[in-house]
Amino acid sequence: MAGWSEKVLDIDLSTQTYQTYPLDMEMARLFVGGRGLGARLLWDMVGPEVDALSPENVLIFTNGPLTGTGYQTSNRFSVTTKSPLTGTVLDANSGGFWGMQFKKAGYDVMIVRGKAEKPVWIEIKNAEITFHDASELWGMRVFALTAKLGQNNNKRNVLCIGPAGENLSRMASIMNDRERALARGGPGAVMGSKNLKAIVVEGKERPVINDPERFKFMLYETRKLLAASPLTSQALPEFGTVVLMNIMNNIGALATCNHQQTQFEGADAISGEELSEKYLVKNSACWACPIGCTRISKTEKGEGEGPEFESTWAFGAQCGIADLPAIIEANTLCNDLGLDTITAGSTIACAMELSEKGYMDSDLRFGRADQLAPTLEAMAYREDIGSDLTDGSLRLATKYGHPELSMSAKGMEMPAYDPRGMQGQGLLYATSNRGGCHMRGNMVGPEVLGLPKMIDRFQVQGKSSFVILHQNVSAAIDSLVICKFTNMGVADEYFARVLSSVTGIQYDTGELTRVGERVWNLERLYNLREGFTRKDDTLPSRLLTEAPTEGPSKGWVVQLEPMLKEYYRGRGWDENGIPRPQKLEELNLADLLVRI
Amino acid sequence: MAGWSEKVLDIDLSTQTYQTYPLDMEMARLFVGGRGLGARLLWDMVGPEVDALSPENVLIFTNGPLTGTGYQTSNRFSVTTKSPLTGTVLDANSGGFWGMQFKKAGYDVMIVRGKAEKPVWIEIKNAEITFHDASELWGMRVFALTAKLGQNNNKRNVLCIGPAGENLSRMASIMNDRERALARGGPGAVMGSKNLKAIVVEGKERPVINDPERFKFMLYETRKLLAASPLTSQALPEFGTVVLMNIMNNIGALATCNHQQTQFEGADAISGEELSEKYLVKNSACWACPIGCTRISKTEKGEGEGPEFESTWAFGAQCGIADLPAIIEANTLCNDLGLDTITAGSTIACAMELSEKGYMDSDLRFGRADQLAPTLEAMAYREDIGSDLTDGSLRLATKYGHPELSMSAKGMEMPAYDPRGMQGQGLLYATSNRGGCHMRGNMVGPEVLGLPKMIDRFQVQGKSSFVILHQNVSAAIDSLVICKFTNMGVADEYFARVLSSVTGIQYDTGELTRVGERVWNLERLYNLREGFTRKDDTLPSRLLTEAPTEGPSKGWVVQLEPMLKEYYRGRGWDENGIPRPQKLEELNLADLLVRI
Repeated sequence: MAGWSEKVLDIDLSTQTYQTYPLDMEMARLFVGGRGLGARLLWDMVGPEVDALSPENVLIFTNGPLTGTGYQTSNRFSVTTKSPLTGTVLDANSGGFWGMQFKKAGYDVMIVRGKAEKPVWIEIKNAEITFHDASELWGMRVFALTAKLGQNNNKRNVLCIGPAGENLSRMASIMNDRERALARGGPGAVMGSKNLKAIVVEGKERPVINDPERFKFMLYETRKLLAASPLTSQALPEFGTVVLMNIMNNIGALATCNHQQTQFEGADAISGEELSEKYLVKNSACWACPIGCTRISKTEKGEGEGPEFESTWAFGAQCGIADLPAIIEANTLCNDLGLDTITAGSTIACAMELSEKGYMDSDLRFGRADQLAPTLEAMAYREDIGSDLTDGSLRLATKYGHPELSMSAKGMEMPAYDPRGMQGQGLLYATSNRGGCHMRGNMVGPEVLGLPKMIDRFQVQGKSSFVILHQNVSAAIDSLVICKFTNMGVADEYFARVLSSVTGIQYDTGELTRVGERVWNLERLYNLREGFTRKDDTLPSRLLTEAPTEGPSKGWVVQLEPMLKEYYRGRGWDENGIPRPQKLEELNLADLLVRI
Repeated sequence: MAGWSEKVLDIDLSTQTYQTYPLDMEMARLFVGGRGLGARLLWDMVGPEVDALSPENVLIFTNGPLTGTGYQTSNRFSVTTKSPLTGTVLDANSGGFWGMQFKKAGYDVMIVRGKAEKPVWIEIKNAEITFHDASELWGMRVFALTAKLGQNNNKRNVLCIGPAGENLSRMASIMNDRERALARGGPGAVMGSKNLKAIVVEGKERPVINDPERFKFMLYETRKLLAASPLTSQALPEFGTVVLMNIMNNIGALATCNHQQTQFEGADAISGEELSEKYLVKNSACWACPIGCTRISKTEKGEGEGPEFESTWAFGAQCGIADLPAIIEANTLCNDLGLDTITAGSTIACAMELSEKGYMDSDLRFGRADQLAPTLEAMAYREDIGSDLTDGSLRLATKYGHPELSMSAKGMEMPAYDPRGMQGQGLLYATSNRGGCHMRGNMVGPEVLGLPKMIDRFQVQGKSSFVILHQNVSAAIDSLVICKFTNMGVADEYFARVLSSVTGIQYDTGELTRVGERVWNLERLYNLREGFTRKDDTLPSRLLTEAPTEGPSKGWVVQLEPMLKEYYRGRGWDENGIPRPQKLEELNLADLLVRI
């Protein structure tokens, strides 16, 4: 069949052996690839008895039928594992070049099990798999390691962890192609726990496309639409994602100083406009991406990719810091150390509040740009104060007796959007299967930008329908895998059509959205099996009880309970948030039900 | 102020006098134009004591701030009146050229009150208003009359009624530019009841645009997007609206033989593909429209505009007729006689079912293409069987003791989409303020085409949110006034931006959608004042109790009650469907509440 390579590479690090076997194509049809396929495989392999940092946890790298085809943004891939940060199902996806190379090596899936006795790195050249000693690489930072292992954007791509992953930081990212990140939920710690430093891939196979003529036509149509949309042809290339800073600040939904406020007086100084004007060197792009939202920025300390909006916010508004060069440098440092910027920034902010309030004895203070870099270094190496912070804000705040000051949902730090000014975003955070996350149906489209249509951001009644739809679509896009930004200019329908042209299986838009719903429900089942319950579908009490006293969101807290009840009903779940058998039947998930 | 002409032309036919006065600009800001402004004016002028066909009813012609500016599809205008068919608030809008000419004559609004003693027609040349004797024109059909009065697409435009309007058929349309129609709900009968045969306009003023540079940029952006979208650049120009015939039939949501079935075996024979291949002469377009969905078709009997999808369905599937030339001719005949094709076709279908079942003594039978033309003639002239049919299917079916066989909501015949296969469409029909209508938030976008996103057409729970959103957006677009087809390629945001550039008032997308919500609630208040209640928000019992026995909608009836309850809650209305004071306050409609 076209699209998929139909091959699984299954590596056991404990024995340093591997096998390959055919992908279950019925599973592929139902879960497609990326996040969906990863979740389905994880379901079978990692149950509640497995600790996330034990050898029994697995890393499942997946690409999708679109990966490597050359369709716009078909560069992405996923890693799925049990999260060391949250204990939930976790998938993180990344762009760059590695995913395309991995696909060209001839695999849909790579499973990494067990634990190497001493540090190793893996080299993959199509069918040739080599385990290398990594003892001398252990301790290296990401940029140097990537260069040493021979990164070459189009021929040889490096994925690795930095010191943070080695030191089992629960916010450690896996990095690929030097500065792209599988960041959230701590997958780097799982890789570190396996003594796996890097995976280098070279591939030579071209993905097979079922209907090249139809595919070519879809390429043409998509190119036209991305070029016509001012978001994908202008806003993202010109300003990158940081274009959101002033927008979010203006509507009073920019979390500030650990969500104590919803507007940041220094927003202008850390905005996309400021970044472009003073620090931007040039744009860059992932493989097969005509948008090119990546920024290359430069400060006195050197050049680096980014920073993205979320990173800029995490070290900026969330820490009360308006010093853009310091933020850019913190971002680059995180990439080099292998740390998730959102969790890192928000954890530092949490420590700043704990310290300012006297609950924790440290000199961390809001606004102190000079504290960013040393704190991040300490976190990556579990040194001094860093050992308190490196496992995330919830463990930190709990240690100091104030878990309510962790701005997290299910233990994962929320991103920039303060949900008191975006009710749907609050429901999204509370129900996201990997915790406080904006990449699982971000409501900034419908609630702020009017994409695809504008809905009232303070509306509560009826809001859940939109959240559910966006969650499903996002799960579908994550299973193809392509970049969600294409969806700003190109309708879901195109993705169904291009998927059909590549695979030869006819997916219509409804069926594609249904794939997303299937994935969402599967992830929910996974979390239920892990022991998560209705009470975990919640938010920090600050967001539920403390209304901003000024700005456009003044007087608003998140009206979670009514939205959540409506959400469960709308999802076909019972009042405890458990999918009803009929819903699972409808989604071809009924066989999993008996296993909870 | 730019955008609006700020002038109202107020004509009293009883005295054949007129006055002009300034438009209330606060009202214009809140209701914008077109449908919104018309509804607001009607609220003040026509209460429940007024019979729709009495001199006290008024015709309110409105354009909007975009009309005549040259923005893509800025050709449309509205007429608002109390409907003789339904008794509800009615607005109908039309494209072509007349609306642009009316704007250039220097007016935002023309009110026509009273009743002329004998037939008249009105000639408007900017400030010069002339009443002409129409005694010799009375009885003329639309095409001949339009030619006689000097129709010239860009200089002089004719709006008139045909014999159906003169004979007070409650399904009479007002026609403009020969073959464009203000069709639904019987506005032609109101015009006939006033002894007004035609309104001819010549205008010379150019609409003033507040920010021509920004406006020009929006024109450019919109042109790009319409050219990139395959719907507006290919599907509509190539096949016209009839492209929907096979799509709706395939999913089992094509009402057939008076909604007795949901699939029509003759669908192929009356499809857009068939029309294009065998009968299409060329495309045509309204003023300032780059899409050009209008078809010019030709049969042995001659040429005419259309037929649109709805007309093709009404005389086709709904009457069990697969004879495309006969359907094309019926459509052209309706345009010449001044009859609404949807109501006409569905009323004939109702008569066919009544006759087949022996409730009515006539030889009308499903599938009899030869009966279309003579029946339509009889209807327009209230002759023979036509006098039974010409006031619509509800009055007809009630006369013969079977009102349940009228496929109408609030007395207006529903269009082609059988809501048993599209649950949201069912809720739409039941709650539409002018009755069974697809132009008030059509769900074919989200439920069938995936525009802007695909939702499950059988989904019940949570469906109301989408219906409400689409109703609001549609009311906003109808108030600008532009063509809804632009929204297939261009996001709502653009309409807000172009409105801002034209008027100088800053509308963001949220505020524009809010205008739509305001208009929807105002129309609801109007209908409540007329005595409509919760029980009128319903559908023919066939759709609520009789499930199709085959096809993709097999087993489904419309699950109206749960959707309706959710809908009322989502709209901020009480359980009887009455807007709560808080909602009206929020919408700046609180001053109207005391008047119910």
